[in-house]
Amino acid sequence: MDRAVPAPGGRANVSPDVIERLKQVLGETGWSQDPQRLAPKLVEWRDRWSGTTPFLALPGSPAQVAAVVALCAQTGTPITPQGGNTGLVGGQIPQGEILLSTERLRRVRDIDVNDDVIEVEAGATLAAVHEAALAAGRRFPLSLASEGSATIGGLISTNAGGTAVLRYGTMRALVLGLEAVLPDGAIWNGLKRLRKDNTGYDLKQLLIGAEGTLGVITAASLKLFPIPASRAVAMVGVPTPADAVALLRRARDETGGAVEAFELIGRLGVDLACRHLPGVRDPLTGRPAWTVLIEIVAGAPGEAEAALERLLTGALETGLISDAALAQNQAQAHAFWALREGQSAAQKPEGVAWKHDVSVPVSRIAAFIETADAELGERFPGVRVDAFGHVGDGNIHYDVLAPADGDQVAHAAARDGGARLVHDLVVRLGGSISAEHGLGSMKTAEAEGYKSPREVAALRAIRAALDPNRIMNPRVLF
Amino acid sequence: MDRAVPAPGGRANVSPDVIERLKQVLGETGWSQDPQRLAPKLVEWRDRWSGTTPFLALPGSPAQVAAVVALCAQTGTPITPQGGNTGLVGGQIPQGEILLSTERLRRVRDIDVNDDVIEVEAGATLAAVHEAALAAGRRFPLSLASEGSATIGGLISTNAGGTAVLRYGTMRALVLGLEAVLPDGAIWNGLKRLRKDNTGYDLKQLLIGAEGTLGVITAASLKLFPIPASRAVAMVGVPTPADAVALLRRARDETGGAVEAFELIGRLGVDLACRHLPGVRDPLTGRPAWTVLIEIVAGAPGEAEAALERLLTGALETGLISDAALAQNQAQAHAFWALREGQSAAQKPEGVAWKHDVSVPVSRIAAFIETADAELGERFPGVRVDAFGHVGDGNIHYDVLAPADGDQVAHAAARDGGARLVHDLVVRLGGSISAEHGLGSMKTAEAEGYKSPREVAALRAIRAALDPNRIMNPRVLF
Repeated sequence: MDRAVPAPGGRANVSPDVIERLKQVLGETGWSQDPQRLAPKLVEWRDRWSGTTPFLALPGSPAQVAAVVALCAQTGTPITPQGGNTGLVGGQIPQGEILLSTERLRRVRDIDVNDDVIEVEAGATLAAVHEAALAAGRRFPLSLASEGSATIGGLISTNAGGTAVLRYGTMRALVLGLEAVLPDGAIWNGLKRLRKDNTGYDLKQLLIGAEGTLGVITAASLKLFPIPASRAVAMVGVPTPADAVALLRRARDETGGAVEAFELIGRLGVDLACRHLPGVRDPLTGRPAWTVLIEIVAGAPGEAEAALERLLTGALETGLISDAALAQNQAQAHAFWALREGQSAAQKPEGVAWKHDVSVPVSRIAAFIETADAELGERFPGVRVDAFGHVGDGNIHYDVLAPADGDQVAHAAARDGGARLVHDLVVRLGGSISAEHGLGSMKTAEAEGYKSPREVAALRAIRAALDPNRIMNPRVLF
Repeated sequence: MDRAVPAPGGRANVSPDVIERLKQVLGETGWSQDPQRLAPKLVEWRDRWSGTTPFLALPGSPAQVAAVVALCAQTGTPITPQGGNTGLVGGQIPQGEILLSTERLRRVRDIDVNDDVIEVEAGATLAAVHEAALAAGRRFPLSLASEGSATIGGLISTNAGGTAVLRYGTMRALVLGLEAVLPDGAIWNGLKRLRKDNTGYDLKQLLIGAEGTLGVITAASLKLFPIPASRAVAMVGVPTPADAVALLRRARDETGGAVEAFELIGRLGVDLACRHLPGVRDPLTGRPAWTVLIEIVAGAPGEAEAALERLLTGALETGLISDAALAQNQAQAHAFWALREGQSAAQKPEGVAWKHDVSVPVSRIAAFIETADAELGERFPGVRVDAFGHVGDGNIHYDVLAPADGDQVAHAAARDGGARLVHDLVVRLGGSISAEHGLGSMKTAEAEGYKSPREVAALRAIRAALDPNRIMNPRVLF
């Protein structure tokens, strides 16, 4: 934890009197000031941001959340809500605010296979939702590496993405209804399970991705899906990112949209995974410059495998791909995915990484990688780029390591300059400087510089309309 | 047009001086006060609502839209925006406001098959977008009966639904970016084409479904999809709506989610279509109480047909369905769809219909229809119910005709009482009183009664934050 620094933004003050009243509201089991209990909630998992709080609220029901927020609203006391503490941009780390954890709100309230809906409390983990869905013969498709810790409330508040967005969309597309405590402490029951509902502005759309600034999500109803009858996974080698995009287009054309995942990993990323992750090896013998993981699903047994084989045979014949390995069983499919999902872990032993979670239009992925590589190489000679991500969404994790045997301290110090270069390019290409992680306290100021003043004014006006005293996660967003 | 009555809400006043200045801004070809030119824009297509306006603005560019809105903002002049005038709830019919038509903004600005995006101006019709997508080997899936007139701006402003929502979602799920003129006249360029973008509240989500109250949408970038390699359509008979829901579940399970449409039509609806629509006939000989139109798609030629045959064979064997007709060719598939899409037209010769565009959770469709039939039958003896709609979305068009040879005037007079009964039931079942048509000026007051005061206050605060003088479509929404 040596490297952790306070997350950006001013330090909040909370009156001792408010804390006493919060204890009354929450009861004996509903709060903590024990430093041991608080510690893991005050540092994010990469040890990058650290925080402080005078009080951890552990409400056991939406009514208790409402009571906490109401008291804070009346007294102008700031609150930072926190789910599984897996965020990467400091949004969940308090700097003196009350810390409100949803960890005791983890009930699966209902699951209905006719509605294809699961209704679940905000503190339930993604893994718990996956499990409950499977037990009912259904599937909740959102999928990302931190599923064992990440909570539904946090995933909604950051509009999480992951590897199945190409087919199922981000969290926004998967939420049918929300229950939330608004910034004045009122409980809003928007827990519908309707696929169509047009009766005025859709309040839940504002709460999704609001990073805890417009209230505390306490429960959600989420869409479930049938389990595909067949699924096939392959890893293939392509010479350039442009070839990967061409392959994606071909795959979507040929399979009529059955592509469920289409992930790209550069040479360095494959090599690092093989070097640092136990049991991981490169299934392709030709050491291609770029590796694509492609997953196809279909409605009948055997169809996905057949479709993927057809696609790869054709692509090999025309020279679009150089090499292909089709997973022969579940274990091999898992091994392919382990190589992809271990990318962040595989970087860690290499030292400091500048992480850029960016998106560009799919048609500009190749231009982005090519130009960013060139501009970075000129300004920061020797840096090593580990670019990987979701080609189908245009979402590239463009991570930059120090030169081999380079100076880690110097690399860390140059981080902001690198980010500026990458983000300027992304915006020139019509992209986003935060594809799926959100802004948190880390990127808010930077994002403001890229937005028009009129848009920022509109976003501020909306926030002020719902939280006039700005008590909800005050350091986060505009 | 004899029956048309003014849409609800107060009558606006516009100063002659403002009109003169608008003429300057718009140039000779950019406005009209010609009653002949205005007439078709002042009555909705069912002749239910009529309106008035002192001035029709016909801006030829987003900059001209901005100039009109800026002038109106400065002078407190109210505006009603209008697309293809296909709305069913009076939202597009002015009562004295300036009428701003998007009919001259109909350019397809760009189409990119790598991005799977079409960028199009707000006044383009849905049919034009379908055509442009097809020409590029792609598909824009939103589909509804009025596609030849309905415009993209209107479809976004009402978050339109239609028959492909089960698989592709409503318009909200299909919009990647928006360009809009905000209520102060500023042009907001949110025309991104990103699948993932998390940099603060998603302003476009507010504009989608806002029914023109938060600005004027001038262009959009929309998602395109591959054309499925195979597609199969059948009509099947089931004894009850509960059986239809069971069949939907089975179809989704067995095909791994390949069901693209699942539409229900009651006996009366089939009979009316056969009686009143030229060339339409019932493909099922057994006169089932309920008919389901089911469409399945797949990624390879022949797969959809095979999957649908498997499904129907199994369902016939277990007695879940009583009768089935599989379309043998495109023409037959079109004929099946004509029966479904002609439901509104088939009602017209029968006289007055109380139309209810409602949704309930899928698991409650059967309870809804059964209870509504019973309660209506008791209170309005002899009325004939034509219930049809999108089972997969829980969206039922529950339309009520006068008793055979009944008094049309009396039936029209009882409309509000019927709506109250149906809507009360819908809300009891966790449903929505407007699934896909919006509130307009017709349902706003009613919807307010069903929402919590806290939610209405939040929606009003958001509106006031973006349009403090309430000049945008002032009679519509809260």
